[in-house]
Amino acid sequence: MGNCLDILRNFFCTKNPNVRISLPAVCFVWQIAMIVLFGVFIRYDEESDTGRWLELKKHENITSDVENDFYFRYPSFQDVHVMIFVGFGFLMTFLKRYSFGGVGFNFLIASFGLQWALLMQGWFHSLDHTTGKIYIGVESLINADFCCAGCLIAYGALLGKVSPVQLMVVTLFGITLFAVEEYIILSLLHCRDAGGSMVIHAFGGYYGLAISWVLYRPKLHQSSRLNGSVYHSDMFAMIGTLFLWMYWPSFNSAITDHGDGQHRAAINTYLALASSVLTTVAISSMSKKKGKLDMVHIQNATLAGGVAMGTSAEFMITPYGSLIVGFACGIISTFGYLFVTPFFEKYLKLQDTCGVHNLHALPGMLGGFIGAIVAASASEAVYSKEGLINTFDFEGKFANRTVGTQGGYQAAGTCVSIAFGIVGGACVGLVLRLPIWGDPADDNCFDDEVYWEVPEEEESIHPILEYNNHMVHKHQDISESNFSVEQS
Amino acid sequence: MGNCLDILRNFFCTKNPNVRISLPAVCFVWQIAMIVLFGVFIRYDEESDTGRWLELKKHENITSDVENDFYFRYPSFQDVHVMIFVGFGFLMTFLKRYSFGGVGFNFLIASFGLQWALLMQGWFHSLDHTTGKIYIGVESLINADFCCAGCLIAYGALLGKVSPVQLMVVTLFGITLFAVEEYIILSLLHCRDAGGSMVIHAFGGYYGLAISWVLYRPKLHQSSRLNGSVYHSDMFAMIGTLFLWMYWPSFNSAITDHGDGQHRAAINTYLALASSVLTTVAISSMSKKKGKLDMVHIQNATLAGGVAMGTSAEFMITPYGSLIVGFACGIISTFGYLFVTPFFEKYLKLQDTCGVHNLHALPGMLGGFIGAIVAASASEAVYSKEGLINTFDFEGKFANRTVGTQGGYQAAGTCVSIAFGIVGGACVGLVLRLPIWGDPADDNCFDDEVYWEVPEEEESIHPILEYNNHMVHKHQDISESNFSVEQS
Amino acid sequence: MGNCLDILRNFFCTKNPNVRISLPAVCFVWQIAMIVLFGVFIRYDEESDTGRWLELKKHENITSDVENDFYFRYPSFQDVHVMIFVGFGFLMTFLKRYSFGGVGFNFLIASFGLQWALLMQGWFHSLDHTTGKIYIGVESLINADFCCAGCLIAYGALLGKVSPVQLMVVTLFGITLFAVEEYIILSLLHCRDAGGSMVIHAFGGYYGLAISWVLYRPKLHQSSRLNGSVYHSDMFAMIGTLFLWMYWPSFNSAITDHGDGQHRAAINTYLALASSVLTTVAISSMSKKKGKLDMVHIQNATLAGGVAMGTSAEFMITPYGSLIVGFACGIISTFGYLFVTPFFEKYLKLQDTCGVHNLHALPGMLGGFIGAIVAASASEAVYSKEGLINTFDFEGKFANRTVGTQGGYQAAGTCVSIAFGIVGGACVGLVLRLPIWGDPADDNCFDDEVYWEVPEEEESIHPILEYNNHMVHKHQDISESNFSVEQS
Repeated sequence: MGNCLDILRNFFCTKNPNVRISLPAVCFVWQIAMIVLFGVFIRYDEESDTGRWLELKKHENITSDVENDFYFRYPSFQDVHVMIFVGFGFLMTFLKRYSFGGVGFNFLIASFGLQWALLMQGWFHSLDHTTGKIYIGVESLINADFCCAGCLIAYGALLGKVSPVQLMVVTLFGITLFAVEEYIILSLLHCRDAGGSMVIHAFGGYYGLAISWVLYRPKLHQSSRLNGSVYHSDMFAMIGTLFLWMYWPSFNSAITDHGDGQHRAAINTYLALASSVLTTVAISSMSKKKGKLDMVHIQNATLAGGVAMGTSAEFMITPYGSLIVGFACGIISTFGYLFVTPFFEKYLKLQDTCGVHNLHALPGMLGGFIGAIVAASASEAVYSKEGLINTFDFEGKFANRTVGTQGGYQAAGTCVSIAFGIVGGACVGLVLRLPIWGDPADDNCFDDEVYWEVPEEEESIHPILEYNNHMVHKHQDISESNFSVEQS
Repeated sequence: MGNCLDILRNFFCTKNPNVRISLPAVCFVWQIAMIVLFGVFIRYDEESDTGRWLELKKHENITSDVENDFYFRYPSFQDVHVMIFVGFGFLMTFLKRYSFGGVGFNFLIASFGLQWALLMQGWFHSLDHTTGKIYIGVESLINADFCCAGCLIAYGALLGKVSPVQLMVVTLFGITLFAVEEYIILSLLHCRDAGGSMVIHAFGGYYGLAISWVLYRPKLHQSSRLNGSVYHSDMFAMIGTLFLWMYWPSFNSAITDHGDGQHRAAINTYLALASSVLTTVAISSMSKKKGKLDMVHIQNATLAGGVAMGTSAEFMITPYGSLIVGFACGIISTFGYLFVTPFFEKYLKLQDTCGVHNLHALPGMLGGFIGAIVAASASEAVYSKEGLINTFDFEGKFANRTVGTQGGYQAAGTCVSIAFGIVGGACVGLVLRLPIWGDPADDNCFDDEVYWEVPEEEESIHPILEYNNHMVHKHQDISESNFSVEQS
Repeated sequence: MGNCLDILRNFFCTKNPNVRISLPAVCFVWQIAMIVLFGVFIRYDEESDTGRWLELKKHENITSDVENDFYFRYPSFQDVHVMIFVGFGFLMTFLKRYSFGGVGFNFLIASFGLQWALLMQGWFHSLDHTTGKIYIGVESLINADFCCAGCLIAYGALLGKVSPVQLMVVTLFGITLFAVEEYIILSLLHCRDAGGSMVIHAFGGYYGLAISWVLYRPKLHQSSRLNGSVYHSDMFAMIGTLFLWMYWPSFNSAITDHGDGQHRAAINTYLALASSVLTTVAISSMSKKKGKLDMVHIQNATLAGGVAMGTSAEFMITPYGSLIVGFACGIISTFGYLFVTPFFEKYLKLQDTCGVHNLHALPGMLGGFIGAIVAASASEAVYSKEGLINTFDFEGKFANRTVGTQGGYQAAGTCVSIAFGIVGGACVGLVLRLPIWGDPADDNCFDDEVYWEVPEEEESIHPILEYNNHMVHKHQDISESNFSVEQS
């Protein structure tokens, strides 16, 4: 009987991070499911199907192939693609011994996520009810990458504490929730959110935080020796930071209106980001003795301006308006790293490895409300009558909406995204507490050894060190009894 | 007499990796040859020559500069350029002490190769027989980069075992062979191969493998301590992997037809690559105890889907077809790393440092045959009549070719590329066995010390280590006789 | 009295690298100034303002949004943006313990510089005198990034020897001087300088050298242990090198004429850079025993061809002309690293950390004169009449200028840029000698510890090393008197 209890306790309490069956099973089964669903639903759209593009050109009197949406969006798509895989991936390599997991699991879940996103977003946004098919083009690829971004943000809060199988589950549900909240916000509430302050950053941030809160590990300090960076891992993380920072203008302009819309969104984001860097440096320097800068702030808070411009980048927020947004968000985000993350950990029992609250959740929420204010204060004098209609898509059944009403809906959309993130994350967190996912023990967190074949150390290439070790061992033989060996 | 024999043996058997005369000589002479040949043959084409572009615009009623091919292809060109120099370069930095050689020699041979490729491809494809000139534009630059890719793939099989002078020779002959086989496959057999499954990957892979086979080193195990990665060198390699992976859609779409062709090729490649990642992770995890992932697989096999889509990306293979190709190739490539490379080394005496067989040769060959099947099964129902003609270029003397015949020619083209790779590589390998090229000794392979000024170790910045060493030396003075110093 | 003198001497002579007040103050005050000035002066131009773009389309009968300048220049802008932040940033990470400062301060000053550049260049080039506003679009962003490049080049000469506050001052004055010399050279002298051989590289290089000369530190050898690279810092620097090298065609073509101009500039730069690589390798190999290559040369001199093509890339210099320029500059630049930099340090008391003289100042000056020669030898036979007018902008009050005169003005422009660099740099250097900027002491140069929170060493993850250290300490206790501990 006691034996039986022991087995049960063992089953429920001992961590067994062996994913040799579960990880391959999940990858194979889900990838096969993707193939079947793509076979049933996904087809090329009329700009990527050879017969239909020729037809479209004739039908609409298009004289040049340069009118194909590919040429409007492909450069931005590639920039976004770099942000998803190198940007997010390398940003998460800052831990001294979790760089493989940071960039590798990011790679895995984004590769699955983008396929599932094409389906989910397709069902909600572009299912052709006459043929029952989803037609995809370059804009669908950008949206699928955006959708992944939400889950990668959530991964930031969980970094080092979950198994790859759990991450696949986080992604499966995350993409699903994303598609639903996006449908509600963009289609039902008719909000504008080109760079996704609300639908991507606020949702993704709170989704990850809620999961992390449910998965709270009281004994995480047992891994604290690994919960930090080393010199070169900080440099790898700077690769991620800079590619995110540089390409963020493409992120916020990738799916905005052709012409002035993409042009303006890029300018606004460029300015907000520049402004964030200066205030991040200022606060970081003020907070440490002798004015030393902290790499954590430079790697993260400098990006807050881009997050906060996600909604309003395409609006006529004015260049100095963009600077002000970046100015404020650099300060807020750095303060978050200084005070809010430690507060969360101590009082809310919320462990946020990368500080996604400060980089995504909070600036995303602010970005949503900034968007609401900018929308509400739009005027024909600034936008022109036709420009107002174009920018806010006041057409069809929304033809009579005023900018004031639009502002209200934008604010409502922000709340919807946060609610989806928190409630959805809490539920997914409960699922992840099942003892079947192979997550690491508390003293094994932030350690690549658990899920990766890690190469041996460099000793063999340092003759002096090796000799050194050799000698130490010699001495050990002689004097072993004289002191106790301490290895942390 | 014995002395004389000794000198001869010395000359032919002792490795002398001093390239102080040969490397500068090769670089100078070949670069001067390039300048002379460019002076005789190469001119701007009509879209990059100021007078002729103005004329062309008038002549063809082109109203906007955006019709210049530059705007259709330049973003893709830059992506391909990044793949060649950062993608291939950093992918080859995974060895613990050959990162300089990986990225540096890649830089050298690609810089020479692209010049020679402009000439060789120009002579075969775009020599104007009335003026005797080759006219180059952005598409020529992309093709020159593609041509280099073949040689860089071959470098992967030779990594760490050859001198830079040998690599220059490999490149000179590789580009030459490439231009010939490409002419046979694309012009004579009229195959389609936009992303180069056949002409780039199958050719380059088998070319490198054949050279490596001829250069077999039975005592290579003497360098085995250096034939592996360390933690941070694996991270550098991931930079290469990700830039290859992200920009592969540009690689396969860079020279396809304007409009739907480029659009479709990008979508197909994007999907195949995503699918490859999941099956690579699955097989990698299954193959190791506790389901641990192997960085070698993640760095390489995830790219197999892109290689295998090289031929069929521009066809109407359908989105789920792309997923299936990626699915299969991720599995096959990972199995290659697990079983085929060790088998090759043990039984075929073939040392393939980067496993180019599993990443390029085999998926490239498969890609060629997949292309044949997809071409043979093309139909007017799917492509439309005009679309079929556009996609397969059934014009001029090929106007009456059927898709079935086309499929046969595609398969024949694949065989031609493999034959060129193997036979050409074997011949070049024999040339490289001459004892004049300065290749490293068996116990000096995979070591940057041979060809690079390598900075001293970091001791001086670790006070404790330095002190440590200091102390050890002190002890050594005292107790040297008591034990033997082993330095590997 | 003596006490008083001591305090004075202390104030003027002791270095106190505490920037806790000055750095935040500078960042905040200058960023607020930017917001105010942007509020007063900066507006969207007619291609990024929603109302005005719609108007412009109607007015000029533009049928497609693809005519928006965004689609002509945005891909090049993003490439330039990557060069500024990742290219220059990572190129400066080569020092073993100044990688944070290299990439981090680069990030800070470019983010400030681009805002100030939008204003300065706006006032000189695009101030609308009727409205008193500066209208910005994507071309303004590219120009702002270019303007930053000048200051980042100057930073290369100062790397490791100045405080971030000094760098902000260098940037403030650098951007100001840049805008003035650019106005004189491009507008008054009507020179062509699309890729900035003169206005960016020659100016930036000599500006940095002059500052460094004024700030000469006779006791800099006290930091010599840190003035060098380690294996992995050299690899990080190669990331910078390659992104600069690959994207340089975009740099030189970003703001040239639409159509053939951008097309030709990209081809010429591509070729010159390839040629530079071969001659750099040749000279580097010749200069060392056993023909070993030096990473410093590969990281820097390979880029000289791009610098030297800055002026003439858009001209009809011919493809082989480009190869010749690259050939020569690779040689000259490598010789610079071998002989000129040591000569400067020894005899001119000029410490040039990154060797910007060899990579920017000298090739930039050469590029200016090459541009003068190519311009003077332009002919209608090569350019066509209309092409000549387009390329050299012989319109308005310059309609009657001959190509010979143009060549003379180009040469004059080069001299102006150098004069501005040297005189401006000397003045700024004097300002920077004030003892208020928090620069590091002579024995603290090249050390991130001064301005950054640097993570602790990796010992804790190397059990053997830690055990090792432990043991050494044990021994130390026992045998301390027997030898003296030397820590450098």
